[in-house]
Amino acid sequence: AQSSVTLFGVIDVAARYTKANGQDTKQLSNDGSSSSRLGVRGVEDLGGGLKAGFWLEAALSADSGTADSTRFWGRRASVSLMGDFGEVRLGRGKTSTRLVVDDFDVYTTTGLGDVTRLYSTFGLGTSLYDTNNRADNLVQYFLPSDLGGVYGSFDVAAGEGAQGKKMYGGRLGYKAGDLNVAGGYQTTDTQNTKFKQLSLGASYDFKVVKVSGLYSQLKLSSYKQNIYTIGAVVPVTAAGSVTAQFSKASTNSAADALITAPSATNATPINGAGDSKAFTIGYLHNLSKRTALYSTASYIKNDGNANFRVGNNAVAAARGGKSGGLDVGIKHSF
Amino acid sequence: AQSSVTLFGVIDVAARYTKANGQDTKQLSNDGSSSSRLGVRGVEDLGGGLKAGFWLEAALSADSGTADSTRFWGRRASVSLMGDFGEVRLGRGKTSTRLVVDDFDVYTTTGLGDVTRLYSTFGLGTSLYDTNNRADNLVQYFLPSDLGGVYGSFDVAAGEGAQGKKMYGGRLGYKAGDLNVAGGYQTTDTQNTKFKQLSLGASYDFKVVKVSGLYSQLKLSSYKQNIYTIGAVVPVTAAGSVTAQFSKASTNSAADALITAPSATNATPINGAGDSKAFTIGYLHNLSKRTALYSTASYIKNDGNANFRVGNNAVAAARGGKSGGLDVGIKHSF
Amino acid sequence: AQSSVTLFGVIDVAARYTKANGQDTKQLSNDGSSSSRLGVRGVEDLGGGLKAGFWLEAALSADSGTADSTRFWGRRASVSLMGDFGEVRLGRGKTSTRLVVDDFDVYTTTGLGDVTRLYSTFGLGTSLYDTNNRADNLVQYFLPSDLGGVYGSFDVAAGEGAQGKKMYGGRLGYKAGDLNVAGGYQTTDTQNTKFKQLSLGASYDFKVVKVSGLYSQLKLSSYKQNIYTIGAVVPVTAAGSVTAQFSKASTNSAADALITAPSATNATPINGAGDSKAFTIGYLHNLSKRTALYSTASYIKNDGNANFRVGNNAVAAARGGKSGGLDVGIKHSF
Repeated sequence: AQSSVTLFGVIDVAARYTKANGQDTKQLSNDGSSSSRLGVRGVEDLGGGLKAGFWLEAALSADSGTADSTRFWGRRASVSLMGDFGEVRLGRGKTSTRLVVDDFDVYTTTGLGDVTRLYSTFGLGTSLYDTNNRADNLVQYFLPSDLGGVYGSFDVAAGEGAQGKKMYGGRLGYKAGDLNVAGGYQTTDTQNTKFKQLSLGASYDFKVVKVSGLYSQLKLSSYKQNIYTIGAVVPVTAAGSVTAQFSKASTNSAADALITAPSATNATPINGAGDSKAFTIGYLHNLSKRTALYSTASYIKNDGNANFRVGNNAVAAARGGKSGGLDVGIKHSF
Repeated sequence: AQSSVTLFGVIDVAARYTKANGQDTKQLSNDGSSSSRLGVRGVEDLGGGLKAGFWLEAALSADSGTADSTRFWGRRASVSLMGDFGEVRLGRGKTSTRLVVDDFDVYTTTGLGDVTRLYSTFGLGTSLYDTNNRADNLVQYFLPSDLGGVYGSFDVAAGEGAQGKKMYGGRLGYKAGDLNVAGGYQTTDTQNTKFKQLSLGASYDFKVVKVSGLYSQLKLSSYKQNIYTIGAVVPVTAAGSVTAQFSKASTNSAADALITAPSATNATPINGAGDSKAFTIGYLHNLSKRTALYSTASYIKNDGNANFRVGNNAVAAARGGKSGGLDVGIKHSF
Repeated sequence: AQSSVTLFGVIDVAARYTKANGQDTKQLSNDGSSSSRLGVRGVEDLGGGLKAGFWLEAALSADSGTADSTRFWGRRASVSLMGDFGEVRLGRGKTSTRLVVDDFDVYTTTGLGDVTRLYSTFGLGTSLYDTNNRADNLVQYFLPSDLGGVYGSFDVAAGEGAQGKKMYGGRLGYKAGDLNVAGGYQTTDTQNTKFKQLSLGASYDFKVVKVSGLYSQLKLSSYKQNIYTIGAVVPVTAAGSVTAQFSKASTNSAADALITAPSATNATPINGAGDSKAFTIGYLHNLSKRTALYSTASYIKNDGNANFRVGNNAVAAARGGKSGGLDVGIKHSF
């Protein structure tokens, strides 16, 4: 019954400049390199190799002191049983397929360089694809860590009668030495059809540069989008590294026509359809293992009806227009 | 000024199946055995036998990562002075009468077996009987612990001009060896009348079985409900125990007619009037002092206009209909 | 990477009686002496005299268990770099000018004696003068602590396109022995004009009494208000001290006319214009360094259109009317 509760978190704040469609804005923004959070977690040894654990993790925005008003513990809220068999985890958490995207995105799906800025939801609002990143009512099974480099996890999320929540998914990966490869797939019930996401990633650390590649395919009925990404991390000093990433997203003709279909009636069709390219470069300098300064510059060029932009709170891009951003920030973990 | 702050909590998640009125639902649910929570508490020794303490306790739902959007620290938020005289506690907390109900309900008013699922509010919405479980603006006095087995607490809650909040109440009990008896009473001002709740409980631990009985009477103007409950806990192994509980609720004729009166205009008349019976059996297996697996099955049979159901997020019962549920879960305390 | 996270807070609850306009109310209220809060903070030594730190601080109301529903971490959310150069702090926090007001208000802008109860916002709603107390998107620089008694801080807050948020400000002070003097100034863009606040304070500790004086001038377009305050703290025993404070607020004729202008269309024109006087006396008895009992009595006499009142949740005052309040409370820090 000995308590071993750990309080942990990240505060990440950045000065950010974004420009699009002839307008620009200066902000004190958040989460340029890591998502700000506060968490509580713990593990209990039950004996016989069995462990129980819990994890509560809340998002927060340090620029305004706000928390997540919908789900306070929205990043994770779970209880786990762990043993030789692996881990069974119940609650809210990140989907296995998103873990693949996180792992092979040089920017870990955070900040101006977040690879998912080009990922379309084909006009579906957030609540209609609620499993995009994390899922409620999630039962997850994680493989044990001693399978000779093979790792993986499998998801089932209960829909409980709501659209965009019932989900099946999983990922399988292999990590050995400098190599890491993984694939993930998930399918979510929504609007009497399914939103399907496939992601395949690979990375190799050549020491002078770590190169990663990521391919994702998103499908909703007849709509389809392919996103190809290649990234690199170059250690330039003992404490500093330069990062670069390029993504190209292409939609099929059905998705290209979405501007006159669902998204035209969608109040905030940020993730419209159309082809787009994103290019990001960054520099991160570690002041310690817990604290770093960073700067990131990103540029998106949209084609057709696409209006992707560099970050949710960036200036809105015009359809087929450009979006650019630059930030300089600090992140501190505890 | 030495700080002795304790971070504590419970995460309880269960797979739940409920059925009523020809419909069923499968959920990843919460709080099948204990209410999920996160708390911070501490005690300071002021010298001379005097102590000061604080307690903050927040509800949470691990299946979706949500907190209580109305009162974040809704389970308890209080400051106390403690000494030979007992404890004076100021803030929000559980009413004394509800403490009686908690103590003599085999399921501690939690999960599918919660005895208060049959407790009617005679069509009053939550805000019109805000002291049902916990009270705001509460001044509580707890008797000292050295009164030869006698224990008790007394409540005054300020209404501050709102309906359903001004409350007086208290409880007195006697606990010695295997015997525990207690009674509680509270009266709350609402709608120019009073909601009165009386609860009497007794339990005796025969070792092979601990038996408990509880009687509650609820009154609002001419409406009246009596609820009789008997429960048992049977230790079957060193770590496991079987539980069972039966309740019978009966309303008077004025309350029986409520379907055509207030509750007919109440958007969610869950706690309608009419007679009902509830039967629950459960099994709980402790993996440690802090972690347990459990399963609970419950069944409610309504009569007349009653539409009580097994849990707030269960399938809605028809008036005079049945409601049933089964869950399998894990709870972890820290 | 060693973690040094501190959990801290205050719970302050008081029984409060307020009267105005022929009506009175009894409440279990909050924050009679200190603002109730829960916080998490930490500092990391980066070596070479450099430190990184974070601070999260949430308001809470112990009488009802509520948190701040708009900004959970509304009291402070920041990350800092500290060194010989001073401190650079990014996030949400208290403005430098408000720090001057806090320091020379005997009641630290808290409770019935809070000096800012007489500070007008000339009919502007909270969101139109969002930097009144704390600011979002704040970049703050604090002078180092070894400048021979000189201290200070400077603020820039990004408006991000919203009214009442873009702010510049700062304060400079000198503290040596029993003397403390400081001045602060801030200007906030709102409604195509600027809200300007100047505050000058001084205090001297004569040991038998600590005397403080504060002058504030508030300006919005042609509206102007001057507030003069004098206060005293008299230690009467080793653990107890008596406090007293008197404020006089005067508006110019343009502000006096506000009742027929903006404030007439403002749903809750609490901070109307007109002249007013406030007088407060209090007694605080320390049970320890962390716990105190206190009582405060305050009285406001309004002139003209002013309807200032003793505390936000006090009975509303009539225009030109009186408002009075008394509380008895306990505060406990951890």
